[in-house]
Amino acid sequence: MDAAKGLEVPSETLEAEVKAFFDSAPPLQNSDGITQQLDQFIQRNSSPSANGKARRIVCVTSGGTTAPLEQRCVRYVDNFSSGHRGATSTEYFLKAGYAVIFLCRKGSFQPFCRSLPDDPLLECFKPIDESNIQVCEAYSEAVKRAVVDHHTAVTGGLLLKLHFNTIFEYLQMLQIIAVSMRCIGPRAMFYLAAAASDYYVPWKEMVEHKIQSGSHLLDVKLVNVPKMLSVLRKDWAPLAFCISFKLETDANILLKKAGAALEKYKMDAVVANELSSRKEQVVVVTSAEKVLVMRNKSDADNDVENPLIKLLSDKHGTYIEHPGR
Amino acid sequence: MDAAKGLEVPSETLEAEVKAFFDSAPPLQNSDGITQQLDQFIQRNSSPSANGKARRIVCVTSGGTTAPLEQRCVRYVDNFSSGHRGATSTEYFLKAGYAVIFLCRKGSFQPFCRSLPDDPLLECFKPIDESNIQVCEAYSEAVKRAVVDHHTAVTGGLLLKLHFNTIFEYLQMLQIIAVSMRCIGPRAMFYLAAAASDYYVPWKEMVEHKIQSGSHLLDVKLVNVPKMLSVLRKDWAPLAFCISFKLETDANILLKKAGAALEKYKMDAVVANELSSRKEQVVVVTSAEKVLVMRNKSDADNDVENPLIKLLSDKHGTYIEHPGR
Repeated sequence: MDAAKGLEVPSETLEAEVKAFFDSAPPLQNSDGITQQLDQFIQRNSSPSANGKARRIVCVTSGGTTAPLEQRCVRYVDNFSSGHRGATSTEYFLKAGYAVIFLCRKGSFQPFCRSLPDDPLLECFKPIDESNIQVCEAYSEAVKRAVVDHHTAVTGGLLLKLHFNTIFEYLQMLQIIAVSMRCIGPRAMFYLAAAASDYYVPWKEMVEHKIQSGSHLLDVKLVNVPKMLSVLRKDWAPLAFCISFKLETDANILLKKAGAALEKYKMDAVVANELSSRKEQVVVVTSAEKVLVMRNKSDADNDVENPLIKLLSDKHGTYIEHPGR
Repeated sequence: MDAAKGLEVPSETLEAEVKAFFDSAPPLQNSDGITQQLDQFIQRNSSPSANGKARRIVCVTSGGTTAPLEQRCVRYVDNFSSGHRGATSTEYFLKAGYAVIFLCRKGSFQPFCRSLPDDPLLECFKPIDESNIQVCEAYSEAVKRAVVDHHTAVTGGLLLKLHFNTIFEYLQMLQIIAVSMRCIGPRAMFYLAAAASDYYVPWKEMVEHKIQSGSHLLDVKLVNVPKMLSVLRKDWAPLAFCISFKLETDANILLKKAGAALEKYKMDAVVANELSSRKEQVVVVTSAEKVLVMRNKSDADNDVENPLIKLLSDKHGTYIEHPGR
């Protein structure tokens, strides 16, 4: 998302853009069902737990969104994101005692499945005869842990998974989640790791049918997606602890852009990551400091998300005690 | 792909376009390893089988290709395709006695897994205690069949799976496969169900870093991908039996476009399918006739690919006897 100060959009213009975006979006399927699931999840996790305090709830967004180019969609602009960051972070948030609303792209990485191959059923199991199968020795432990830990989190009411494909679905669901979480005030965290489209074709300007390939050149004109971080902070969830991400391929502009985003969208922290080193290190940018967070290389199983979630959880704890911004 | 006769590209222009496409493409990783796998697979399936004839080999392409917008790719234009058609067809080709080279998009549908949920490991298995798991009753049979049938086909040397993401990888691999299969003449079939990008940004014209989102409008200019069907037919695999696909969302133009593609690219058949009805029926267009192929609705487990592969296999058999075109 753009963070250049000189391009600040006046708030009445932003409001009009946001309204136009949602008015033109195709209606979200099953929005009532989603709201109901969220309300139950938030209520279940709002009664005091063992330590006498109610559990914190984080909404982790993960994976890339698509921007369709045709209403009956054949082509779309997609944003690269495997969803590894969001899935891994979800595991550490659960370990840290959070309940997690995991809003992810269909088909992206799922929590507890990181150490498995792409196609775990076909690659981790083998037949022992014509009609019986068993897990391959090499994956035995990883498969068991994935199924047991995932099942424990979901049936224990600590992990709620919701799925999107398009930027329209993503932002509509993010709004529903934020409004549902408003009642828990500063106990809510947003950890916005999804790679949301910066540009889209407004639904009403989109052609209905597949674009024909007769001409030599295809000229696709997309417009900026309204800056929803501002709206999330200001209107949807004003008391929540908000973390956004800034991914760049050019390390030279990364920290400057992260700092600008922090200020412009009034985030509590921005996680700055560079495409090629993002699994090794990130920088957490807050108004007070810039903290370099690195993976513990002495432990092969360790992830940069381990110290990252520890740091953010600490900062969130401090914020809950003193929610003033 | 474009099928308008008026826009025919002179052959020297096409050759130059094809050369420019491949020259500018990033080199395919592990192309020697892929060639070796292919040579072994084709050789293994070229000795006479039980009926005294060598096995037929089909290359099934499946899933959509991406066209990157940046060299260090964050954004890309993607083509919608779950890969269901290619995965299902592969099963029926194996049943019909073919050996199958399955060239598919990473993450797209895999053969033998159609009746399983999106995330089969997490959804089909459950813990029985802290450290043991079992398959859920409802999926027991489907999971066993997927693992056993897939394993049988792969270890039996009848199914070779190769993966692509970008249009560059797809076309480079298709070329390698076609050239490797040239030695088996009319016994080769190409069943091109993948949704290949019509438009791309030439690698050398692509920006290196992530496109910044500062401006209100993103104007993406893509150029036509050279018509590789012509090259496949003419240069790469002149004796193979070639089936291409035509997908449209507008039924009114579908058959006309399929017929034009048949003639322009000198395919042996074009399978015409309309987006909304593609799992129920297709039309096989050849120079002699148009055959409507429908799913047998009296059997819930039946697929339109069952009669489709039967029909194409018959036509391929006739072609092998009389390969003149």
